[in-house]
Amino acid sequence: MIKTNILIIGGGPAGIVSAAVARKNNADKKITLIRENKKEIIPCGIPYIFNRLDSVEKNLMPDKSLKANKIDLLIDKAVKIDTNKKIVNLKDGGKINYDKLILATGSKPILIPIKGIDKKGVWQIKKDFEYLKKLRQAALKSKNIVIIGGGFIGVEIAEELSSIKKLNISIIEKLNHCLITTFDEEFAAAAEEKIKRKRVKIFTKAAVKEITGKNKVEFVKLDNGKNIPADLVILSIGAKPNAALVKETKIKLGNYNGIWVDKYMRTNIPDVFAVGDCAETKDFFTGKHIPIMLASTATTEARIAGANLYQLKNLRKNKGTITAFSTYVNGLVLGGTGLTENKAKTEKFNIIVGASECPSHHPKALPNTESVKVKLIFSKTSKTLLGGQIIGPESTSEMINILALAIQRKMTAYDFETLQISTHPLLTASPTIYPLITAAQNALK
Amino acid sequence: MIKTNILIIGGGPAGIVSAAVARKNNADKKITLIRENKKEIIPCGIPYIFNRLDSVEKNLMPDKSLKANKIDLLIDKAVKIDTNKKIVNLKDGGKINYDKLILATGSKPILIPIKGIDKKGVWQIKKDFEYLKKLRQAALKSKNIVIIGGGFIGVEIAEELSSIKKLNISIIEKLNHCLITTFDEEFAAAAEEKIKRKRVKIFTKAAVKEITGKNKVEFVKLDNGKNIPADLVILSIGAKPNAALVKETKIKLGNYNGIWVDKYMRTNIPDVFAVGDCAETKDFFTGKHIPIMLASTATTEARIAGANLYQLKNLRKNKGTITAFSTYVNGLVLGGTGLTENKAKTEKFNIIVGASECPSHHPKALPNTESVKVKLIFSKTSKTLLGGQIIGPESTSEMINILALAIQRKMTAYDFETLQISTHPLLTASPTIYPLITAAQNALK
Repeated sequence: MIKTNILIIGGGPAGIVSAAVARKNNADKKITLIRENKKEIIPCGIPYIFNRLDSVEKNLMPDKSLKANKIDLLIDKAVKIDTNKKIVNLKDGGKINYDKLILATGSKPILIPIKGIDKKGVWQIKKDFEYLKKLRQAALKSKNIVIIGGGFIGVEIAEELSSIKKLNISIIEKLNHCLITTFDEEFAAAAEEKIKRKRVKIFTKAAVKEITGKNKVEFVKLDNGKNIPADLVILSIGAKPNAALVKETKIKLGNYNGIWVDKYMRTNIPDVFAVGDCAETKDFFTGKHIPIMLASTATTEARIAGANLYQLKNLRKNKGTITAFSTYVNGLVLGGTGLTENKAKTEKFNIIVGASECPSHHPKALPNTESVKVKLIFSKTSKTLLGGQIIGPESTSEMINILALAIQRKMTAYDFETLQISTHPLLTASPTIYPLITAAQNALK
Repeated sequence: MIKTNILIIGGGPAGIVSAAVARKNNADKKITLIRENKKEIIPCGIPYIFNRLDSVEKNLMPDKSLKANKIDLLIDKAVKIDTNKKIVNLKDGGKINYDKLILATGSKPILIPIKGIDKKGVWQIKKDFEYLKKLRQAALKSKNIVIIGGGFIGVEIAEELSSIKKLNISIIEKLNHCLITTFDEEFAAAAEEKIKRKRVKIFTKAAVKEITGKNKVEFVKLDNGKNIPADLVILSIGAKPNAALVKETKIKLGNYNGIWVDKYMRTNIPDVFAVGDCAETKDFFTGKHIPIMLASTATTEARIAGANLYQLKNLRKNKGTITAFSTYVNGLVLGGTGLTENKAKTEKFNIIVGASECPSHHPKALPNTESVKVKLIFSKTSKTLLGGQIIGPESTSEMINILALAIQRKMTAYDFETLQISTHPLLTASPTIYPLITAAQNALK
């Protein structure tokens, strides 16, 4: 029996960061991380293995943080947890005794019952090195690729593959727009516009009736009767918490089969923590469960758990997830944080909305000047920022982080009006019309 | 006699924004803006008239905001203010009667008594269309250009001119590094390294003894005896408040000859406000005067004044200037906000400092991946953020705005540890080592 002080199950972003932060807070403890894969994939990098990275090998999580933090790495699969005896059983027969356990077992792709889904040529997005290598090879040999699901991963894979000239790519999305669960209509439509210019066909309000073909997939048949030729189908319809390991334990699940956790990422069982995609995520504003699985969210949770293992430190707790993300579509960056206008209305927030648009550099005659478009959503009564969306150049990804911080610090539209900012002709919008300030002013009008 | 409700003197960023915000808050008032120049220069764009903008015409402030906000524009020079009668006299003999007056008269270049400074071929950075056109023509015809003063403007002009192959460019800086009044040594040195690669010669710890030449400038002689050939000399040694207009009034000056203002940008005289470079700037942390003249700071002040003319609204007040800026040097962006380590020590803050460095994209094999380097300075006792500096790609300019906001919202190093952020492989650093978080963690170690 191996004895360790801190045991982390899972080697994704949540696991790695848990281990590093646990080490920062516990110089003398023995820390062990178990993961199934010898080579661990960077989850958000998967769309880019086809072209920009040109291989799956280049999309591996480096182990140097584990080494630098003196974490014992064990390649094995945890198959059972005994929370009374504090023992985890491994697939190879070994056992590990822990003081503190962090579950960071991640997520699994969602599968839906489509006829023909088990045909050869139908692929999922698995965080599995060998599987992704095969998917990559198969995709590069294809001609017609159909992507089922127009969320981030679906759109990013389509955009990546669209740079390979010989491929015909289609996205099938059951809602009225791609990305519409995370952006308001005008932003989702702008992303679609950009991806269509790369010859990607988009079928919205479309459900898959059947995947047909003799030995392997040949067509994807939609419920409107349309038949799309396909050598290869990629399912990207979302993910669900991978909580299989807790099924035979007394570790409680939350409302959506993620592991229930308190604000310190503790499960209901003493000395057992859960972080990342396998843990239930609660919304910053409503406290409701939200199906958000982002590496950035996972690492925040890991930083909380890693610091709170033996003592609750500096009240480092999870205030609820605000969601903050950005994506790149054919030269355009789209980012969002907090509630969309749609979501705020669905949740019955009384809101005011302000938009703005201006050149990304000033004067706009400067090279590489694009347009920055901002939308901010505030509470009508308290004027507190509820959410924001931005379209613009690469720096949009960090502008979203300004808004994410503003939400976390409960900023109001009035605070934006006197916001002190840095600007530069070659790098940002003009200080006279800085778009975050202008959007707030317009919301207050 | 013209009668107006709100009179703004000055057409730079502070004037324009004062007018726009005054209009937002006062739909029915008559608002008049007086400026001397028919064509108004964008101050921060001046370095880029030589090459990237390829003309001075492309660096003009558009008048469309004035038109859209129904601001009466008067091209004239205010020569006298009678604050009792509330009358401003104009150079052409006209008079304007106001209810509320906003002074936004900007700044003027500092001149130092160097022998030979009045020689032909010695230029200043004036916000004057015709003057800058002549400077541009003269610079493009030169061979050897010497820039006296290695602050932002000096370095940016050198970088811009260095793309014109036939020019030999030198910067003379009296301190030990260029940009050292705004960055700590390691950041200033990195900027110097980058500009040197563009064949710009840098002479630090060097004072100019004399500018020599027969009919026009031929050499710049340093106090160490070095003689630098020069067809053209550009003085960029800073600016001072242009407060000439208040000299014969009872409007009080502050400690450094800027106009004294309270937190609502009111001068000591009722109904007279001052904003931008002509107004005294006070430090966010110490309350001391600081010689900061940035368009972004000016516009914040303008937004405060414009909203507070008739009533103090939502307590929109100036909490003190944090300074936030970024600059671009040959592919590298450097940004800073708040106090540098040097400045914090000089002001006797008890500090902790954390640094971090990581790839700008993740995995780092992705195209266009650079390095991001962050330094954060916190109070040792309260752990409150005092300042930060970043070197990295273009998005650095908006990362600085995250830090600027963090200072304004009094964030601590602990808050950074649980910061929720947005990341993306093609756009940002990895969430596992997001550099603002890592730097805060390292400061706490």
